[in-house]
Amino acid sequence: MNSTTFSLSSLSQVAGLAKGLPSADADAIKEARARQDDLTKPQGSLGRLEELAVFLAGWQGRDRPAIDLAQAVVFAGNHGVCAQGVNPFPQEVTVQMVANFQAGGAAINQLCAANQAELSVVALDLDTPTADITQAPAMSAQECLEAMNRGAQAVNPQADILLLGEMGIGNSTIAAALACASCGGEAVDWIGPGTGSDAAGMAHKASVVDAALALHPSRDGMDILANLGGREQAAICGAVLAARSYGIAVILDGFICTAAVAPLHVVDPALLDHCLVGHQSAEPGHKRLLAALNKTPIVEFDMRLGEGSGAALALGILRSALACHNGMSTFSEAGVSEA
Amino acid sequence: MNSTTFSLSSLSQVAGLAKGLPSADADAIKEARARQDDLTKPQGSLGRLEELAVFLAGWQGRDRPAIDLAQAVVFAGNHGVCAQGVNPFPQEVTVQMVANFQAGGAAINQLCAANQAELSVVALDLDTPTADITQAPAMSAQECLEAMNRGAQAVNPQADILLLGEMGIGNSTIAAALACASCGGEAVDWIGPGTGSDAAGMAHKASVVDAALALHPSRDGMDILANLGGREQAAICGAVLAARSYGIAVILDGFICTAAVAPLHVVDPALLDHCLVGHQSAEPGHKRLLAALNKTPIVEFDMRLGEGSGAALALGILRSALACHNGMSTFSEAGVSEA
Repeated sequence: MNSTTFSLSSLSQVAGLAKGLPSADADAIKEARARQDDLTKPQGSLGRLEELAVFLAGWQGRDRPAIDLAQAVVFAGNHGVCAQGVNPFPQEVTVQMVANFQAGGAAINQLCAANQAELSVVALDLDTPTADITQAPAMSAQECLEAMNRGAQAVNPQADILLLGEMGIGNSTIAAALACASCGGEAVDWIGPGTGSDAAGMAHKASVVDAALALHPSRDGMDILANLGGREQAAICGAVLAARSYGIAVILDGFICTAAVAPLHVVDPALLDHCLVGHQSAEPGHKRLLAALNKTPIVEFDMRLGEGSGAALALGILRSALACHNGMSTFSEAGVSEA
Repeated sequence: MNSTTFSLSSLSQVAGLAKGLPSADADAIKEARARQDDLTKPQGSLGRLEELAVFLAGWQGRDRPAIDLAQAVVFAGNHGVCAQGVNPFPQEVTVQMVANFQAGGAAINQLCAANQAELSVVALDLDTPTADITQAPAMSAQECLEAMNRGAQAVNPQADILLLGEMGIGNSTIAAALACASCGGEAVDWIGPGTGSDAAGMAHKASVVDAALALHPSRDGMDILANLGGREQAAICGAVLAARSYGIAVILDGFICTAAVAPLHVVDPALLDHCLVGHQSAEPGHKRLLAALNKTPIVEFDMRLGEGSGAALALGILRSALACHNGMSTFSEAGVSEA
């Protein structure tokens, strides 16, 4: 584990980061793969459970990966774009839901408890929404950098896995803008109901995204994040980079969380090599986004809540994968004949 | 809970069972649905987690279902059809794997531990394989009835959920025969690699199934089970019926476990109303079989091991569903504004 704390000194620093950050340990991957092939089952018969165990072996740099400390962080932010009427819920729900997280009453609290993750919530200047992206850059470069470093600081360097989630009324519109700017296509390709917009609401969201994309033409990754993102999106990017610097694998949540890191993919796809995606959201743009980022979700369960809920659900599956990987007997240990 | 123990006195009794067995509690379903709609999330945003909680509410007859005791049973049997050379593993692997289950070294042991299920293993006359289905009925009606009652007896009437799995070298051929006889189509539609057959092995398995289907033309459900099944398949059917009589919901495992209950579907599709399917196996016939039985698997993870492994993985997801259902605050409790 790294004993120095990761932080960024400028947005432009991100472009050169990948070369200096840890990558997966090829020896550990090879050893973990060999172990899987020697366990008492037909080779490959545990399917993606095997892949997950081997993936984590690579990032933990050991053939027997473990999850003692699973850290879950939910970042919350508010968005000036709510002035455009993009969400059926009022903006005060962001702060109300943060209180609900802190009181233990939200879905993510139950899912973290059920799957043994330590949850923390980072509320990012909720009384100062970012600027309305149809009128101005959401954040200055300095504001974006600060939010990224808030995200980085939230990561425990001792964690064995990091789960990321978000809360922010209006942020499915922000996610659509980030995804469209990062991956191309039309605004309407990336728009969905979010917390419950109807067809008219979705058409309006698409027009808002169109206006924002026209106002902010740069397709540089960090420009996209600052101009079109929000503080929780920037914090997620910072946390992803910090986790990478510590060699910690990440489970991203759904559409909004994946869209948050799409600007990092624009900068360098390798920056997301340590990231799993917990689930494929029911939000229709998520499938397209996962394809663009070349990520296979762990589960697909028609969820569209955010908060890290899909990441926490996936953590349970990862725990099952490690239980098999570390606990099963080999053919020779069990005295079982091979094919 | 029912205090009398379920058993069958004849195979013909199964045809009239559904009318006398419990069905899901409509009031509990309605109350659980209303609770889901009042929890602090956009309605429906937990997707299939909501459906699972409501399903279990119906079968447990209470708006707040719980899983204190999850019982997992693996039934093991041996098959005369192995004389036809349908499996790359030798038949002694069945008894070796039962020993592995009992010693705690198999995948199902780790998955039950990780997802908090109590595992028991029922070895069904492993030294006396059923008859070769290409030569004779696998079981007499009496043998089939006895195996069904062994399955029924294994069910703990106090369990809150029952997970079913199987082990038996050669039983992917048996499963293909049961599925084909129960659901139609050609033998080749239901054949897959099983524990690792190659293309020639699969073609041979198909010819074996064709021969067996021709020898045993009856398409009565219980005739299919006795003529083409095995003891672990009959035991699974018995356990499913016993669970239903106690009002216990079931999580079936993959292809072989689902094919085992296909004869019950032939008798009366309502006999499987209390059954979930834990996963969609990589065994290619499973997708077709799930469609024929109108079941949606909980996960799809390219697994093809059996043993109950997919059911145990799905149990973790069910636990997450209940954690949300029972632990989340309502909008009014949390002081969160609604849309």
